[in-house]
Amino acid sequence: MKFSIERAALLKAISQAQSVVERRNTIPILANVLIEAEGGNVSFRATDLDIEVVDKTIAQVERAGATTVSAVLLHEIVRKLPDGALIKLTDDGAAGRLTVEAGRSNFSLATLPREDFPVMASSEYTSNFTAKASVLRRLFDKSKFAISTEETRYYLNGVYMHISESEGGKVLRCVATDGHRLARIDAEMPEGAADMPGVIVPRKTVNEMRKLLDVDDAEIAVSVSETKIRFATPEITLTSKVIDGTFPDYTRVIPTGNTRKLEVDAAEFAKAVDRVATVSSERSRAVKLSLDEDRLILSVNAPDSGAADEELVVAYGDERLEIGFNAKYLLEIASQVDRENAVFMFNSSADPTLMREGNDTSAIYVVMPMRV
Amino acid sequence: MKFSIERAALLKAISQAQSVVERRNTIPILANVLIEAEGGNVSFRATDLDIEVVDKTIAQVERAGATTVSAVLLHEIVRKLPDGALIKLTDDGAAGRLTVEAGRSNFSLATLPREDFPVMASSEYTSNFTAKASVLRRLFDKSKFAISTEETRYYLNGVYMHISESEGGKVLRCVATDGHRLARIDAEMPEGAADMPGVIVPRKTVNEMRKLLDVDDAEIAVSVSETKIRFATPEITLTSKVIDGTFPDYTRVIPTGNTRKLEVDAAEFAKAVDRVATVSSERSRAVKLSLDEDRLILSVNAPDSGAADEELVVAYGDERLEIGFNAKYLLEIASQVDRENAVFMFNSSADPTLMREGNDTSAIYVVMPMRV
Repeated sequence: MKFSIERAALLKAISQAQSVVERRNTIPILANVLIEAEGGNVSFRATDLDIEVVDKTIAQVERAGATTVSAVLLHEIVRKLPDGALIKLTDDGAAGRLTVEAGRSNFSLATLPREDFPVMASSEYTSNFTAKASVLRRLFDKSKFAISTEETRYYLNGVYMHISESEGGKVLRCVATDGHRLARIDAEMPEGAADMPGVIVPRKTVNEMRKLLDVDDAEIAVSVSETKIRFATPEITLTSKVIDGTFPDYTRVIPTGNTRKLEVDAAEFAKAVDRVATVSSERSRAVKLSLDEDRLILSVNAPDSGAADEELVVAYGDERLEIGFNAKYLLEIASQVDRENAVFMFNSSADPTLMREGNDTSAIYVVMPMRV
Repeated sequence: MKFSIERAALLKAISQAQSVVERRNTIPILANVLIEAEGGNVSFRATDLDIEVVDKTIAQVERAGATTVSAVLLHEIVRKLPDGALIKLTDDGAAGRLTVEAGRSNFSLATLPREDFPVMASSEYTSNFTAKASVLRRLFDKSKFAISTEETRYYLNGVYMHISESEGGKVLRCVATDGHRLARIDAEMPEGAADMPGVIVPRKTVNEMRKLLDVDDAEIAVSVSETKIRFATPEITLTSKVIDGTFPDYTRVIPTGNTRKLEVDAAEFAKAVDRVATVSSERSRAVKLSLDEDRLILSVNAPDSGAADEELVVAYGDERLEIGFNAKYLLEIASQVDRENAVFMFNSSADPTLMREGNDTSAIYVVMPMRV
């Protein structure tokens, strides 16, 4: 194998690969990236056995071939080489070394045989569609904060992507919950997605795919089967196993009868919650909301360190209500609001509360109250 | 106590104080800042029993008084209040609470009695002088990287500031070393400093005083005794105990007979060292320098991961030499060089090497070689 490549192109290709590689793993070859050169292309493949990413780029290939080398080490080296450098990579096969040359710098890196690299088996996908990067980004960005980190509830360790019915017809929906709060985000159903099986996309996959979604207008090819999901741009293909479990029936926890409506400036609300929560210790960060005619008082009482309250002018026309929430949860859902106003729908101080952005029901959030 | 103060002024005053406070300490009052209001001034005092900082600022004092409150908590609250806010602080004494009011936000913070706050005893200073902030900054910034972190060699856990003889007469000198490398930085002796006792300024003090030195032209009042050092601007006074020990005779380790001179572009050199060190594991980061007529080859050999070398065009006219150094130490001294060229003076591959910036002898560095 022998090829030359611009530093910027190599750095971009290897960045995504090294990010998938787990820093602590006991199988040496999983720390490596599989480099395959053929024709005018070079591909870089990395895997943690659950996710596989392949990044293809153009290079001047002098001699076709393949080898594997430490992903982190190669990334570090390329990062430190000067901008604009032309990098030559040569593998002579026999010696078990990959030579990296750029200007007056020479590196000789230990390789492992390409035959040992675990390439993910290809799948039959039951559903294929395309979606704009901006649409997928919204679906996952707005839901991922609610993913559970409890490993015993493994079926909540991801975002449940599926097709559902909404008022306006069928939608592509992402749901995440940890039992304390829930996010449900809808987008128009892409053509060809109607028969898509519902899948739980693992947290790491959600984070890794995020890097494919940087260009708003890019069309992302999505393929789904019962066991796998694939996101692809012309350069990068990310394939991931989905979580083998059943996502609970989330519709039961979304309140439909909450009638007490609070409308509040989302940014002002988030800042006020953050301020009053300062006096509380990390453990029991409960914030009390006291609602009265067009007035909201946020308060925190921490016997050890002190107390805090702040008054906000809001739109609220129902009877008096006092309800407590975990400050972190309130902050997280308030920061999801892109527009000016957050709308809270309450029932009683013991019932789940619903939050949405203005009158838009394509993104709704549920949060459980705390006793205060 | 009752006073009003602009958010920006309060934030600045409290920032320095909360930075001195140790995050983990077992004496509750040491987590607090002592606030004293009198006349048109309010002072904020914090201590870790070794360092005391007092920050004085102008405020509208309605009722004189004093109390102590958590430095970190007060800092967090002030940081989160909106820019431009006018903040009112009130302590009614009896209730053991400090009230902080700004706009519609109210905080009530637990206080501890001012009588319990350990104010540092005042000292007789044997030497008083003033120095420009830029001069002190250079002295400490260029030497502090070499401070030892070995607690058993406590007398090396700081910068040794003293008066010494140089070619051009008496100088104010800062020296730090950890036994592997040494930095010796000189500045013109300020008027009134001639009889200053040599003192070892602890690492934390060096870092804290750095915040007083932001304005280049500011005149810093320095006072020194056998046991304490004080740095003061009109607003901030930082008083610190000095390390009770004897700094070793560093002059013995500064080589005077090294004749083999290497002149190299400092930035290029640092980048090349960083690149070749990439292949080496963290533990034994040894870089070999191979010198020949106007040519320097940097190389690293790490059996597990690979090898790297890089050639630099340099000015070197002496006989061939191979010498090894810890990559981190080489990087650190190379990054001290403000000008274009670093000059290395070698003797043999087993002797300490001297480094300076061009022909300037007011900042010199010594680094011990490693066997490679």
